[in-house]
Amino acid sequence: MVSNIEWTTKEREVAQEIFDRAYERETGALVEEIRDKASLIAKLEDVWQLHDYLSAKRHNIDGKYDFRDAYLVFVFSQLVKEGWVELNELEDLSQDKLKKISALTRM
Amino acid sequence: MVSNIEWTTKEREVAQEIFDRAYERETGALVEEIRDKASLIAKLEDVWQLHDYLSAKRHNIDGKYDFRDAYLVFVFSQLVKEGWVELNELEDLSQDKLKKISALTRM
Repeated sequence: MVSNIEWTTKEREVAQEIFDRAYERETGALVEEIRDKASLIAKLEDVWQLHDYLSAKRHNIDGKYDFRDAYLVFVFSQLVKEGWVELNELEDLSQDKLKKISALTRM
Repeated sequence: MVSNIEWTTKEREVAQEIFDRAYERETGALVEEIRDKASLIAKLEDVWQLHDYLSAKRHNIDGKYDFRDAYLVFVFSQLVKEGWVELNELEDLSQDKLKKISALTRM
């Protein structure tokens, strides 16, 4: 089972770094995006649409960056799919993890 | 009881007009405010603060504009207190309603 993969302390450190970098990238992009979106607000409907968008984004980001061992390969595959992490940034992880993450990105 | 006040069809029409005008004013101001606030967004914390602010505003506005007879004097007193309606805009309502709304604004 994918969720039974063990992570060594060293691997967890590597993972944490990639994780933090992805979080910075995604949330940095969000800051820009919201500033841009908001500058185009012209009517009330736009305000409520921005609110809905922020609710969804917050829920998505809060849920996604889950650093528990059992979830890490799923989190990384998701981050790769969304473009916040490149597969080659994961090369310091063990081959079996890399293969699993890579396989999950194609699902 | 304040909530037992009866509203005639004519009064309801007057009330609806004032109500709609207040809604236009408040939501129009919100559109400007959000555009201004959003232009100052610089970091992730600002994004989540904007989200919290919008959640609170939406809840407040959705709850406030309640056109049921039993709530109208409360709604109008609240709108006067918040500055979206001037007391003199209510002068086409009956004297008893005006007195009640006016009294409620001082609570």
